[in-house]
Amino acid sequence: MGDRLNGGTRLTDQKKTRVVVDIYGQQYSIVGTESSSHIRLVASIVDDKMREISAKNPTLDTSKLAVLTAVNIVHEYIKLKDEYERLLRKMNKEKDDDSDD
Amino acid sequence: MGDRLNGGTRLTDQKKTRVVVDIYGQQYSIVGTESSSHIRLVASIVDDKMREISAKNPTLDTSKLAVLTAVNIVHEYIKLKDEYERLLRKMNKEKDDDSDD
Repeated sequence: MGDRLNGGTRLTDQKKTRVVVDIYGQQYSIVGTESSSHIRLVASIVDDKMREISAKNPTLDTSKLAVLTAVNIVHEYIKLKDEYERLLRKMNKEKDDDSDD
Repeated sequence: MGDRLNGGTRLTDQKKTRVVVDIYGQQYSIVGTESSSHIRLVASIVDDKMREISAKNPTLDTSKLAVLTAVNIVHEYIKLKDEYERLLRKMNKEKDDDSDD
């Protein structure tokens, strides 16, 4: 997924979708190979998260707010990745245990 | 994880860590219950991602750049979540198949 500046160049043969979304009162033209509903979902999650952080910290400017939103999302991503890897190890361990029978 | 404005209020009894990090040339005081190394890792991922997107789109201002960074990270998060849920279903299916034997 890229922003509007990537829209003019077709890097692959995959069909690209261009969707204009509103995030925190600003319009963004998002280009990606995903469906428009996926792009809208992603934008609405970012918008919600920015409003949630802004409500707790009303003095933050948009730029800092967006950076702290990104920080929060990366934090959630790493937690999920750890959980994913834990599940993968558990699954592989169960397979090993089964093959030992 | 919150920003510095959450630092003054202790909402839980969990020990809080406060770390000053540099993201895209701006300092942020991040407060969280995680280790300082985790907070630094999160900040460095956001910084890297912002620089990567900025390199592709040199005309973007910091605010839009940060929003598009958040958009990219949410997109990665949803992909990982789908993959995690796929793995979970696979694991549960294998358990069901085993119990059918």
